[in-house]
Amino acid sequence: MSTQIPRVQLLLTGDELMSGDTVDSNSALIARELAGLGLTPSRRVTLGDDRNALAKEIEALCADADVLIINGGLGPTIDDLTAAVLAQVANSGLSEHPEALNHLEKWCEKRRLVLNAANRKQAMLPTGCSLIPNPVGSAVGFSLIVNDCLVMCTPGVPGELRAMLPIMIEQLRARFGITLQKDVLRLQTFGLGESTAQQLVLDNHPDWPSEVVLSFRAGAPQLEIKLSVTRAEDRPLRDQCQKWLESLFGDHIIGEGDTRIAEAVIDLARESRVTISCAESCTGGMIASMLTQIAGASDVFPGGFVTYSNTLKQSVLGVQASTLESQGAVSEATVKEMVIGALDASGADFAMAVSGIAGPGGGSEDKPVGTVWLAWGDRQRVDTVCLCWPVERVLFQTMVAAAALDALRRRLAGIDKQSRYFDQRRMR
Amino acid sequence: MSTQIPRVQLLLTGDELMSGDTVDSNSALIARELAGLGLTPSRRVTLGDDRNALAKEIEALCADADVLIINGGLGPTIDDLTAAVLAQVANSGLSEHPEALNHLEKWCEKRRLVLNAANRKQAMLPTGCSLIPNPVGSAVGFSLIVNDCLVMCTPGVPGELRAMLPIMIEQLRARFGITLQKDVLRLQTFGLGESTAQQLVLDNHPDWPSEVVLSFRAGAPQLEIKLSVTRAEDRPLRDQCQKWLESLFGDHIIGEGDTRIAEAVIDLARESRVTISCAESCTGGMIASMLTQIAGASDVFPGGFVTYSNTLKQSVLGVQASTLESQGAVSEATVKEMVIGALDASGADFAMAVSGIAGPGGGSEDKPVGTVWLAWGDRQRVDTVCLCWPVERVLFQTMVAAAALDALRRRLAGIDKQSRYFDQRRMR
Repeated sequence: MSTQIPRVQLLLTGDELMSGDTVDSNSALIARELAGLGLTPSRRVTLGDDRNALAKEIEALCADADVLIINGGLGPTIDDLTAAVLAQVANSGLSEHPEALNHLEKWCEKRRLVLNAANRKQAMLPTGCSLIPNPVGSAVGFSLIVNDCLVMCTPGVPGELRAMLPIMIEQLRARFGITLQKDVLRLQTFGLGESTAQQLVLDNHPDWPSEVVLSFRAGAPQLEIKLSVTRAEDRPLRDQCQKWLESLFGDHIIGEGDTRIAEAVIDLARESRVTISCAESCTGGMIASMLTQIAGASDVFPGGFVTYSNTLKQSVLGVQASTLESQGAVSEATVKEMVIGALDASGADFAMAVSGIAGPGGGSEDKPVGTVWLAWGDRQRVDTVCLCWPVERVLFQTMVAAAALDALRRRLAGIDKQSRYFDQRRMR
Repeated sequence: MSTQIPRVQLLLTGDELMSGDTVDSNSALIARELAGLGLTPSRRVTLGDDRNALAKEIEALCADADVLIINGGLGPTIDDLTAAVLAQVANSGLSEHPEALNHLEKWCEKRRLVLNAANRKQAMLPTGCSLIPNPVGSAVGFSLIVNDCLVMCTPGVPGELRAMLPIMIEQLRARFGITLQKDVLRLQTFGLGESTAQQLVLDNHPDWPSEVVLSFRAGAPQLEIKLSVTRAEDRPLRDQCQKWLESLFGDHIIGEGDTRIAEAVIDLARESRVTISCAESCTGGMIASMLTQIAGASDVFPGGFVTYSNTLKQSVLGVQASTLESQGAVSEATVKEMVIGALDASGADFAMAVSGIAGPGGGSEDKPVGTVWLAWGDRQRVDTVCLCWPVERVLFQTMVAAAALDALRRRLAGIDKQSRYFDQRRMR
């Protein structure tokens, strides 16, 4: 068993990656998993579905790497070339792999599909390759040694790649005798901008230790903060840095790992033995959808109401016609009545309500596109805020839905402070 | 002026691209702009901030391309290496570019900033280069001929790149005398698998002309079919191929371009002057959210109901307790009553309802995880189907929400046939 640090390169294939039809998120997925072994790919090449170019590139990359991870081109269609090209470069020929065929047959059977010729092509693999099991999709992955380089072929569908990566990581760990474990702590936050967060850390902790790598990954609606060390002895330093971050950003931290904001709300509600509901106008079902994407949401969420029209705000939630007339649908009075209406109609203990102008049309001078009123609370106390988020429609809905969930998260967690973005985006 | 079709390659630089902290969306941005010139990059290489590796790669890429677009590494920090490395490869030396300095001074002045040494570094460019103006940021772009290859250097900040691309495209069009425009038709479909679609085309049109490139892009829930030709004289052939596809898949085609299924439903409802609503159990708000992500949804969608608990199915939608007791929440009788309840509570003309088992828990032998009942219709006629989609929770919700929308789309469009997936996935 070798203990060298292997040189890793990536090859991504697919016309859709070259044409700009698809943004490649798979490379980042692969890189983040490799980081757990302390490995960073040194080079990444992306090519279209061109047999000659692929063959030439695979040959060159193999000559210059210990591990080559190829992503894409394993599907059933004629532009899926990876197996054929790799067999050509390795001079191994293609043959029907019995395990792969078995996987395909089972996959089709489970879905009540007939295995057709196109699917069956996915079992034709370079002779002598080993399978990388695919727990979720039809295409199996496979690996083959080509000129002393371990070539691992993986499917382009992100969900399938994600499911296969832990298996590949263990194979790499075993093959190269990697004992080092990059120790990564990921914290999910909501309401912090990347540059604000970075500046706050710099200002408050100019003595930040270089052994603890701090990085940020902005995703809508959450910002991930990552702390990593590569030596076990630096673990106490990392714990200290984590404490610093918690005292700086504590109320913005939703949870560790992949925790989503809806998940944090559901967990808090379950712990407090309360139920929650929502009344949505401009977010149009996205709050309910974020909640119900979490398994077990039914424990605390009996349901919610998408009251897009004023008529439904009245008939379903009991918002007063006079309120809508005098204050308008996007107003503090309306969202307060929506919360009460949602509590009454659902029987839940807590509720959120939002009403705003998602755009692109519908704005006015007084209430421009991006204006939104939020309300949340229980029968004793309903809080409100008016924010302005003048961004593209779906991003607006996503951020507003998350803001409503975050407001309720803070209420359920007994956090009195509101989020920083409330100050930055507050209108009234 | 040359009229060759230039061979274009891309080089992306940045440690954040290799570590997985940043997903590269710039390549897609560049590729989509190039597509307007009929150009597709033949190869894309991504590297970290490593001076030697960059120099070696730039040299190799220049030798093999007519145009090399470099993205990233133009900022003020020490890991921004592009200008220095390019000057080294071109053997041109670096010098302070007066126009670039002028741009930086104006940029700082406008923001009341003092031009510091780090900023000033951004004016040190390869001697003899031409500027590519940056209308929105501090870093200018620049181009230089290296070994007969036009190298264009652009900043990594997406907003700045986006603002510079139209200028670069005009420079390329002028330099290479490009009049040609790639002609791409994209069709959005729902209910077809990639392999099924390809097999059907192969079986029915073995004489498919090679001038018309057919490609598929599977996204959940839609499958995109793309037809492209690069010569104006092949346009009639493409039209013929489009007719073939329409007769093969016509009822599965939602629309052209980026049309989403919810958009097609909203357009049909608007044309027919009818309103629509939905009652959701297992999709938990996703149908409503898909509808309201489309601007103008309020024209036809007064709102919807997320009735996750049986209590809300009764109180909000008037589903009979006896139905829930005798048939269960996941049953034909329940979804039929949900449709009627949604019609009554919303006042809409048409409604969809879904109730199923999204998993991972909650399945039984009779109704395994993935089982779902759908119903859709108006006061005169409600249709139903029971499908089984045993996939991961959020994908299940996405596919079921799209299936409900597709069922209503077919009803509104007067298509009697149901989708192919109804046959493949039908349980009862």
